Amino acid sequence: MENNYCVIMAGGVGSRFWPLSRQAKPKQFLDILGTGRTLIQQTFDRFSKFIPVENILVVTSARYNELVQEQLPELKEDQILLEPFRRNTAPCVAYASYKIKTRNPDANLIVAPADHLIIKEEEFIRQIKNGLDFIANNDTLLTLGIKPSRPETGYGYIQVKEKEDYNGLDNLYKVKTFTEKPNLEMAKVFVESGEFFWNSGIFLWSLPAILAAFDTYLSDVSSLFAKGLKLYNTENEVHFINKTYSECQGISIDYGIMEKAQNVFALTADFGWSDLGTWGSLYDNKQKDDEGNVIRGENVLTYDTRNCIVNLSNEKVAVLQGLDGYIVAESNDTLMICRKEDEQQIKQFVTDVRIKKGDSLV
Amino acid sequence: MENNYCVIMAGGVGSRFWPLSRQAKPKQFLDILGTGRTLIQQTFDRFSKFIPVENILVVTSARYNELVQEQLPELKEDQILLEPFRRNTAPCVAYASYKIKTRNPDANLIVAPADHLIIKEEEFIRQIKNGLDFIANNDTLLTLGIKPSRPETGYGYIQVKEKEDYNGLDNLYKVKTFTEKPNLEMAKVFVESGEFFWNSGIFLWSLPAILAAFDTYLSDVSSLFAKGLKLYNTENEVHFINKTYSECQGISIDYGIMEKAQNVFALTADFGWSDLGTWGSLYDNKQKDDEGNVIRGENVLTYDTRNCIVNLSNEKVAVLQGLDGYIVAESNDTLMICRKEDEQQIKQFVTDVRIKKGDSLV
Repeated sequence: MENNYCVIMAGGVGSRFWPLSRQAKPKQFLDILGTGRTLIQQTFDRFSKFIPVENILVVTSARYNELVQEQLPELKEDQILLEPFRRNTAPCVAYASYKIKTRNPDANLIVAPADHLIIKEEEFIRQIKNGLDFIANNDTLLTLGIKPSRPETGYGYIQVKEKEDYNGLDNLYKVKTFTEKPNLEMAKVFVESGEFFWNSGIFLWSLPAILAAFDTYLSDVSSLFAKGLKLYNTENEVHFINKTYSECQGISIDYGIMEKAQNVFALTADFGWSDLGTWGSLYDNKQKDDEGNVIRGENVLTYDTRNCIVNLSNEKVAVLQGLDGYIVAESNDTLMICRKEDEQQIKQFVTDVRIKKGDSLV
Repeated sequence: MENNYCVIMAGGVGSRFWPLSRQAKPKQFLDILGTGRTLIQQTFDRFSKFIPVENILVVTSARYNELVQEQLPELKEDQILLEPFRRNTAPCVAYASYKIKTRNPDANLIVAPADHLIIKEEEFIRQIKNGLDFIANNDTLLTLGIKPSRPETGYGYIQVKEKEDYNGLDNLYKVKTFTEKPNLEMAKVFVESGEFFWNSGIFLWSLPAILAAFDTYLSDVSSLFAKGLKLYNTENEVHFINKTYSECQGISIDYGIMEKAQNVFALTADFGWSDLGTWGSLYDNKQKDDEGNVIRGENVLTYDTRNCIVNLSNEKVAVLQGLDGYIVAESNDTLMICRKEDEQQIKQFVTDVRIKKGDSLV
C-alpha cells in the first residue's frame, strides 16, 4: 500500500491579483503565468509525478467545488474536501488528516498550497522525496525552508539551529523559530546571517505525528474532527463538517502548531519558489522584454513603456504609451492601472469596487 | 421661399480620437461629449433652430450613408450627398453648391463642419444671422473668425485688416491673410496683436458669390460639377458624381479659394468654439473634477490620479491609480493609455494597430 499522500490547500481568495483573481475565481484557478495550466493544475501535475493520483486530496471552499472538478477531472468526489467557511489552515489540515486516517492510518502527508510557483521541478521532487523518507522514519514535523535570494519583506522566515544528521542529507536542520514578515533592515540581517530561510508553507509529516501535535497544541480543534471518524466518506460527512466548522476556531497551522511544537525540522532548498502573492512577484518571476516589460496579451503595442506588467486577453487590442512601472490588467470587463510599487492598495480597490457595484463577487 | 441653406461637411475620419473614433465610425458620429447626442446631431440641432430642415444638406462619404440616415432621420435621401472618395473640401462645396443651384439659384449658404463644439449657441446663431444678412446683400465670401483665448498652435489663423462698416456690426473685417498653424512663439505674437483670429472653417456666402469664385480660382473643379446640372436629383446623379470625383483634384476650399479671393471677409466672434480635433481639446472643453480629471464612465474609481481624461463605457469597471496627465480610452475592445502631451502619436498607433491586425477599419 502506498503511504504517501498529498493535501493541496486551495481555499484562498487571492484578492491581491485582482482584477484577474476574484472571489468567484481566485488565483489558484487561473493560468496566471500563461502556461496553459492553472496554478492548481500545475501543483497537481507536480505531485502526481510521484504520488498516486488517488492519494491526492484538495481542500477548498465549497463554492469552488465545480472549479476543482472542472480543472482536475482526475480527482474523484471523495478527494475534494469542501470547507463551508474559511477557518485558516489548521482546521483544513485537521479535516484532511482525519479523513485520510479512515483510509490509511500510516499515511505520510505532504501539505502544500495550490497557488505557488516552483520553477525547478526536479529539484523540488528530489527534496520532497528526501523529506518523505525522513518523516516516515522520524516522529517530526518537517517544513520546507527556501534559501533566500533577496531580503524579501513579503515572506515569513524560519530560523534554523544545528544541522540534523540523517541519511547523508546536508540541508536538514532543527528549527529555532518562526518569524513574521520582517522589515527591510531586519530582512537584510536575516539573509546575511545564513540562518534564515523563507517559510514556504509546504509541510511534511506522518499522520501519527501531526495528530499527536494537534492533540498537544490544538486539542479543541482535533477533538472536533476526531468525532467524525465514522462519518467521513459517508453521506453524513457534509453535515458533520458544516457543523464542525461552525464550532471550530480559525487558526493557522503555523501559529497553532509549528511555532510551538518541539519536533520541528526544516529541509532547506532552492527550487525556484515563489508564493506568487503579488503582481510584483509575478513580474519578478517572468522573462522581461528589452524594455523590462512582462506582457501577456497578443495584441499589446507599447511605446516609451518600461518595467510594466501587462495582463490582457489575446483579443484585447491595447496601445500603452509613456508608462513606467505600472500594472495594467483587465479581466471580466474590469480594468486596473496601478503603479507596481503601490500594489498593496489593491485590496482597498477591491473593497471600493464591491461597494460601488454592490457586488460581493467582484 | 426660404433662401438660407446649410451644408454640413461630415466626411472626416477623425483618427485622432482613436480608439473611440475609427474609420467605421468617425468622430462626428460619436457622442464624444457624453451629452446624449452625437456631434453631427448637435450640429444639425443647432442649425435646424433657424434653417428649415429641408434646406439642410449633409455631405459625407458614401460609407457613412447609413450612419447619417440613422442619426438624422429628419433628412430625406436627397439631402444626403455621398462622396465616393475623399477629395478635401473644395469638391465637397462644389457638389453641394451645384446641387442646391438646381433647387434655388438665389440660395445663401452656411458651410460648416459636422464635428465642432459650440458652447454658446445663442451667440453663435446671432452671429450667423448677422453673417447671412451681410452675404445676402454683398457679393462676398465670409468666414467666421474666433477670438483666440490662448496661443493655440493647433489652429490656422485669419489676419484681419480694416473694419467693414455694415449695418452697425462692429466685428466685420476685411481679411488680410490666412495663415497655417503657427509655432508657439508665433501664436503668442498673433494673440497679442489682436489682429489674428482662429480659422473656424465655418463659411457663409451666396450661391452666385461662391460659384463665381470657383469659376475664377478653381474652374477645373467647378466645370466638372457644372456639367451635371441636369443630372442632380435624378437616378443618374450617383454615377455622375462617382465619375466626377474620380476626375477631380483634391483641394481644400481654404487653399483653393479663400486664400486667393479678393472679397473675403471675417465676422469675428466668441461663442465657445472648439474643433475638438484632439483629446486635449476635449479635455480643455470639459468640466474637471477636483483632481483635474475629466472622466466619462460610471464605474471609474481613481486613486492618486490627476489631470487625466478617461473615456470608458458605463459598463466598464476601472481602477486607475497613480496616473498624472494621461488619456485612458477604450472602445470596440481596444484600450489606449497615452500621455496627453504625446497624443500626436495616436495616428501612428492607429497605423501600427492596423498593420498588426491586418484590418483597415481598426
